[in-house]
Amino acid sequence: MVRIGVVAPSSRVGVVAPGGRFSGDAAERVRELAAAAHPELEIVFHPQCFLTHNHFAGSDAERAAAFIEYANDPAFDAVWFARGGYGSCRFAEEAIAALTPHARDKIYLGYSDAGFLLAGLYRAGFPHLAHGPMPQDAMRDGGDAAIARALDWLADRSSASLEPGLERGRAHAAFNLTVLGHLLGTPLEPDLEDHVLLVEEVAEHSYRTDRAMFHITSTPSVRRVAGIRLGRCSDVPDNDPDFGESEEQVVRFWCAKSGIPYLGRADIGHDSANKIVPFGPF
Amino acid sequence: MVRIGVVAPSSRVGVVAPGGRFSGDAAERVRELAAAAHPELEIVFHPQCFLTHNHFAGSDAERAAAFIEYANDPAFDAVWFARGGYGSCRFAEEAIAALTPHARDKIYLGYSDAGFLLAGLYRAGFPHLAHGPMPQDAMRDGGDAAIARALDWLADRSSASLEPGLERGRAHAAFNLTVLGHLLGTPLEPDLEDHVLLVEEVAEHSYRTDRAMFHITSTPSVRRVAGIRLGRCSDVPDNDPDFGESEEQVVRFWCAKSGIPYLGRADIGHDSANKIVPFGPF
Repeated sequence: MVRIGVVAPSSRVGVVAPGGRFSGDAAERVRELAAAAHPELEIVFHPQCFLTHNHFAGSDAERAAAFIEYANDPAFDAVWFARGGYGSCRFAEEAIAALTPHARDKIYLGYSDAGFLLAGLYRAGFPHLAHGPMPQDAMRDGGDAAIARALDWLADRSSASLEPGLERGRAHAAFNLTVLGHLLGTPLEPDLEDHVLLVEEVAEHSYRTDRAMFHITSTPSVRRVAGIRLGRCSDVPDNDPDFGESEEQVVRFWCAKSGIPYLGRADIGHDSANKIVPFGPF
Repeated sequence: MVRIGVVAPSSRVGVVAPGGRFSGDAAERVRELAAAAHPELEIVFHPQCFLTHNHFAGSDAERAAAFIEYANDPAFDAVWFARGGYGSCRFAEEAIAALTPHARDKIYLGYSDAGFLLAGLYRAGFPHLAHGPMPQDAMRDGGDAAIARALDWLADRSSASLEPGLERGRAHAAFNLTVLGHLLGTPLEPDLEDHVLLVEEVAEHSYRTDRAMFHITSTPSVRRVAGIRLGRCSDVPDNDPDFGESEEQVVRFWCAKSGIPYLGRADIGHDSANKIVPFGPF
């Protein structure tokens, strides 16, 4: 496993949208912020980012082709996922199989639904993956800070962009909890043995978070992680009746039951404060 | 595997509530319907059915104890799960480990969240399990028909209560799709090799059904089923934007991609028409 810190800063970043429909306004705002803060950084939005097909940013074939094209293009040193929103699992396995050695040299940055691709790439041994803000985050309240954090990290590997609890000498990985649950047992599941696993959640009822924690902590492969840290759970719909346990109580319950160390909170989530978590040894 | 048809009709049915809070009105209606149609059938609601603890029908310990008590009690020849609603996974593994040989002789009937228990019991080799209506269904529009169907089957093994597409000589199993996805890889996952797998869904966005189908059809153990039949997907929230594919298109897509035969629709669902599917060879 190669240390993410040894990769040279990026100068040419290709953006593709593997899941839900992407916003042209977000692209425009990212271009403005990049031009002001990092004029040395070229951000190229693949035309696929602006396609629509039902729920998705283009058909499965269009999204897969754009991802494969930019990942394999040696002119890019980073691939930035435009947004999550669902859909990358529909082509991830075949697309990853179509990647060439050039694809291994670059950074991949994203989170949420893009976790399906990060997981599959990590399983395939890609060394430079990171969970962190995406262009669509520009549309959030305070979203400029999320974009600035991502750009600083892409351009300068700014340590200020990193999740503050990462431990030197330990491997980490970060996922949306629901995405992680849905890739367990599939050809996208990476080996997370001895990793500190950071999870975050959005827009799930408390009982669903509880159920997802049952699932991941009852899975033998996940029981081999070094521990779990809990990011933010945001936009939680009301539980009827009240669930009666906080998100941290839920995660502590399942960690205790499964023998997985609970290692505290993590500064990640579906929000503008979302920090960057490089995968693998830190 | 013992044929479910060889079990004598039930005369004493114990009801426990392993998940969400249960309604006293539903119990009353079930008692009325049973007294009218099957006076020979004694339906005993465990006092635990009427407990409440946050989201649940009593604490984990209370729900587990009631389930273990009635399952192990030789005076009952059936255990009927009062409702789903979430919660049985919180104690299923330990409770099943606490069952005695008496527990193997009886019928277990339920669906939805009770699928966690049916799955774990099936894995443990229990021969008389069935997916079908539960007492809480009395509160649905037309719910009397669901209760009558369950009572007819409990009292007389009425073949009119069975899902009409079950095939003699083939093993079957039925699950809520989301419940099945959340037990894959856990100690509750049964071996479904060569089974016809019937799935149904309720109150999930189309993109979530798509994602759950990715998950189950990408899991090697599920790829060994004989085929998938699709029950009803009800109360589907609006997808924004429109998902553009029907539930059947979604299931056909993932079956085709994974090489699992798609075997058509099934007459099961979260509704009063929900038919009974005995697990195992039919």
